[in-house]
Order: sequence, then structure tokens, then C-alpha cells
Amino acid sequence: MPKYNLCFLGFGNVGRALARLFSTKSAELAELYDIECSITGVATRRMGWLTNVNGFEVESLLSGKDQPGTIRERDFDVWLRNSRPDAVLETTSLNVENGQPAIDYLQAALRSGAHAITANKGTVVHGYDQRAAAAAQAGKRYLFEATVLDSAPIFSLFRECLPAVKLRAFTGVFNSTSNVIMEAMESGRSFDEGVQAARELGVTETDPSHDVDGWDSTVKICALARVLMKTPLTPNDVRREGIRGLDVRTLRAARAEGRPYKLVARARIDDSSVITATVRPEQLNATDPLASVRGTSLGVHFELDMMPGLTIMSHRPNLQSTAYGLLADFVNAVRNAS
Amino acid sequence: MPKYNLCFLGFGNVGRALARLFSTKSAELAELYDIECSITGVATRRMGWLTNVNGFEVESLLSGKDQPGTIRERDFDVWLRNSRPDAVLETTSLNVENGQPAIDYLQAALRSGAHAITANKGTVVHGYDQRAAAAAQAGKRYLFEATVLDSAPIFSLFRECLPAVKLRAFTGVFNSTSNVIMEAMESGRSFDEGVQAARELGVTETDPSHDVDGWDSTVKICALARVLMKTPLTPNDVRREGIRGLDVRTLRAARAEGRPYKLVARARIDDSSVITATVRPEQLNATDPLASVRGTSLGVHFELDMMPGLTIMSHRPNLQSTAYGLLADFVNAVRNAS
Repeated sequence: MPKYNLCFLGFGNVGRALARLFSTKSAELAELYDIECSITGVATRRMGWLTNVNGFEVESLLSGKDQPGTIRERDFDVWLRNSRPDAVLETTSLNVENGQPAIDYLQAALRSGAHAITANKGTVVHGYDQRAAAAAQAGKRYLFEATVLDSAPIFSLFRECLPAVKLRAFTGVFNSTSNVIMEAMESGRSFDEGVQAARELGVTETDPSHDVDGWDSTVKICALARVLMKTPLTPNDVRREGIRGLDVRTLRAARAEGRPYKLVARARIDDSSVITATVRPEQLNATDPLASVRGTSLGVHFELDMMPGLTIMSHRPNLQSTAYGLLADFVNAVRNAS
Repeated sequence: MPKYNLCFLGFGNVGRALARLFSTKSAELAELYDIECSITGVATRRMGWLTNVNGFEVESLLSGKDQPGTIRERDFDVWLRNSRPDAVLETTSLNVENGQPAIDYLQAALRSGAHAITANKGTVVHGYDQRAAAAAQAGKRYLFEATVLDSAPIFSLFRECLPAVKLRAFTGVFNSTSNVIMEAMESGRSFDEGVQAARELGVTETDPSHDVDGWDSTVKICALARVLMKTPLTPNDVRREGIRGLDVRTLRAARAEGRPYKLVARARIDDSSVITATVRPEQLNATDPLASVRGTSLGVHFELDMMPGLTIMSHRPNLQSTAYGLLADFVNAVRNAS
């Protein structure tokens, strides 16, 4: 049975959930796919660049216990060389502006002959072609299923299940924080109370502006446009309006008439490959499936040349499901590579 | 570029749409997947067993013109041998009772070394293991994406995109005819007028009992249970209640309170692999995504060990999208086989 070395770049909530998942799913991976894994590298700002060529024991790693054979390397390059990864699993925090330093890490991982798997949508938007080329050259995969709709398959769906389709347009409810805030306001609470509710659900950072000003949805549009419509789109190309202009009265009235507001992301490509894209609060009809996307759930609706409409929704995703998106990428990389 | 011989078993509306699709998508198939196709066999009750080793010209085939080189064979076996298919695309009408004669045809196709691709859900429910074994032995694929949710990817989704998940339960709105009839009744029309509306949309046969008594949904449950839950289930194992017991007053009241009736198919598997399955009219909450499945649209919601919920909906499928389900199966069979 082939044994794969895994390296974790970032070891926050998602990284930790992923390590646990590789442990709980190990018997299934062995039985179904002949896959055995060993974590040989873990790197975080706090822990430093750790390698262990014999493989970290997951429970000890999660509880922060010292393990025999662990070496603290000098820097990324030495770490990458000495941990000898077959796959680098990247879950560091997002830099929307330029996707760094994740991008450099993923490029180096691909050059070293590892699959590069990321939860980081910035890396899909900034310099995607560079990563795609590096992956092709190395005969490895650059995969990022968890970046847009949590673990719900989107990129693998188009790649593996929908050959020879043309994506004409999509509409998405991509941002949990905005959804939670607007629902809090519909029930009469303030914007700030909504932010607090989103924080308690663990879906937003201290500063929610990335979410409520529409940047998160904008970057997701760009990622989908680049990969599924095969057309570059930068965040500045997207007409963007966040949810700060909405008040409680407006939101309550909209909900009462059965046409709730959502922060809606839209993109449409014309026959000349020109994309028109918007992020803005919109009222959705009750008959629109995306109107039923509530709380932390996410959804996207695709219009394809071959199908009038295909909707995918991810319900109440959690840390485990996000982590699963990365695990699925890894399995797909490995089983399709051989 | 490899050239594949296609044989059409059944050449009704779906078969004809599929032939047209292979023609309109030929440049894309060549460019993206290095696939070139030629239709070398077509068989229907009316036309007989036709072969043409040089390949039928699609427009002439559709308009029923005679073509040079066409031979009318004696029977299925001779037709199969002489048309030398790489894939048999089966769209004959369904026999719910036993799946015949489609099952025998697909078995023979696999034995002859062709991929067996079908729109016929009866063949998934009756003797699935036999087909799976024949496919494995021949190194070919037995695929049936179009059988449950039109062209929306379900089987390929689990096979290709969701490695190492366990499906615990699913809920589906699988039957367009029932949906259309109930919506007609919600607007005050009679059951019979609803049947008429469904007929006009082309989604039901003269005798709608297969749909309105829940058999269609039942067979779809059995297909999903067998393939995605890996557990055999026969139609008799499903508690089944159709929509004939509903009257206009009940349906109108349910819609008015925002909790419309749908013909809902449910299945859940427990830790001992025992499946409990029902088909019956149920009121769905407005917040349930399946409540938004209207008209001829279809939807399914999955509960997975790795995800709290994943919903897939196919909106207003049409002949072309159904045909696309078969084309996608063919491309996936061919590109994954080599």
C-alpha cells in the first residue's frame, strides 16, 4: 500500500480538524483507496517549522505534546525539503490583497513534487495560471475545493461530473456572516448584535468588514469565474455593495412579504467571454431555492448550456466538513494521479 | 484520436436528443477529450435492428432518410456483433416489474466489451450486482446518471467527488408529474386537469399511475439505496402512498400556510445497514429547500457523515438535459477507462 507523507501548513481549527479526520478515516482510506498517510510536517507561526520523518502521532500533535524525532527546522525551504511531502495541505489565514505568503508556499510545494491543496481562496484568484502551470509541469494537482462552498463539491463537480458543459451564469449566497447578521436584524436585533451572533457561531473574525462589505463573496466570484468560466476576473471587476446600508425596518418588511434579502453574488459571461459580476443585497422570491439558504448555510445556482439550472447547497457546514473538503481533494489528487 | 462506435438501443425523444447532442458537441469532445464518435447501430421496435459500419449521418437518421450502407439485422445478437459498439446507449421504455428486456441487452453489451449506459432505472434496481460484476469483468462501465435526477450529477458526484463519505439518509422530490398535478390542484384545478397539465409538459404517460401512486419515486429510492448506500432494497420494502388521497381544499390550505405538500421520498440507513424508506405526500416547511422544488424540477437532500447536509436540484430539466446525462456518462466511461 502506498504511504503518503502529508505536510500541514497552518494548524488552526481547520488544520486540526483535518489531522483528526485523517486519523478517523484511516481505515476507510486504506480499504477503499489503498491509501496510507503519515503527517511528517506541521508549520505554524507559533509552533515553527516542525518535521518528523517517522510521522507525528495525531493525538499528541493535537494536544501539543513533544514527540520523539521531532525537529524544528530553520525555515520553510528546509522544512519542505526535510518533511518530504506528497501533499501540502495549506490552511493559513487569507491575505485578500495578494494571496501571500500562501502562494509562494504552494508554488514551492508543487515544484518539490507535492500536490498542493488549499482552503485559501486568495491563491485561486491571484496568479492562478502560475499554479496551474506548475502543477501541470510537476504532474501534480493544485486543488481548492473548500474555498467557495465549504466542502460541497463545486470544482470537482465540473471537473469530474460535467464534461463538455459551458457555464453561462451563476448566482450564489456565499457569505455566512452576512446571512446571520441579516437574519438577526429581521428578528429585530441590531447590526452589532448580528455581528456578535455570527462571532458566536464561529463564522466571522473580530473585524467583519471582509464579510459585510462583500469582499468574501467578491473573491469567491473571481475564483469561480477563473476556474469554471476559464476567464480571469479581478475583485475590482466586480460591482460590490455590502449589507451596511440595510436597516432593521427594511429587512423585517422584506422577510414579512416572503421576499427576504440575501447578499447575492452574480456572474454572467457573454459570447465574447465578457463577465458581468455583482455582489449586493437583493430580495429573493420565496420560490428561489437560494431564499431558503439560512444561517451559516451556503448555496449556488448554475446556468449551463446543457441544463437550465443546477443548484448546490451546503447546509450548516462545520469545521469537520470544511476539513473534509481538503481530505477529498487529497484523495482525488492521489487516485487520479496514478 | 480514438474513434468510438456508439449504438443506440431505443430511439425515442431522449435517444434522438442524444444523437443530436453528439453531433453538436463533437468539436468540444474532440478538443477537450480527444474523443471522436460514430453511430454504427440504432435499434427500435419500429425501425428494427439497423447497423451501418461507416456510421450513420445524424441528420438523415433523425429525419428517417435511408442511408447507403445501412443493414437491417435479424436480431439483437447479430446487431450487437455487427455494429461493434464501444458504448451502448439504452433508452428503451421502462418495465418496472423486472427491468426487462433492457437488462438482458445491457448484460450482452458489457459481455461484448462495450460500456453500458442507460436512462432506465429499472436496470439499476433489478439485478444491479450482475451488471456491476459484468462491467468489472469486462473492464467496462455500467453507468446510469440520467435515471434519478435527470442530468444533475448524483451517482458520479458520489463516485468522483465524495470519497470516503457515508450516506446516512436522503430526502427527495423525484416525481415531476405528481408535483405538477399538486400545483394545479393548489390553484383550484382538479386532479384530472393536473394530469392533463403534466401531459402537456411532456412529463407523464397516458396512464399516470406509475407516477401518482409513487412507483417512480419508489424505484428511485431503491436505485439510490443500492448504489450510494451499498444496500439492496426492493420496491416492496418501501412504504408507499401516492397522491390520490389529497383533495384541492387540503392542498390549497397547505400552500396558503406556506407549507406545501410534495410527494416526498425518504430513506435512512442505521448502523446495522437496515434501511427505512417511505414515499408519501408530506407538508414541507417553507425553509426546507425542497419546498422550492416546483413544476418539473427535481431535488434531493443528502445527510452524510462528513457534511450535515448537501442539496442538489435540477431545474426544469428538458430532453436535452436528460440526453446530456447519458453523454456525460459516456465521456466519463471513456476518459476513466484508459
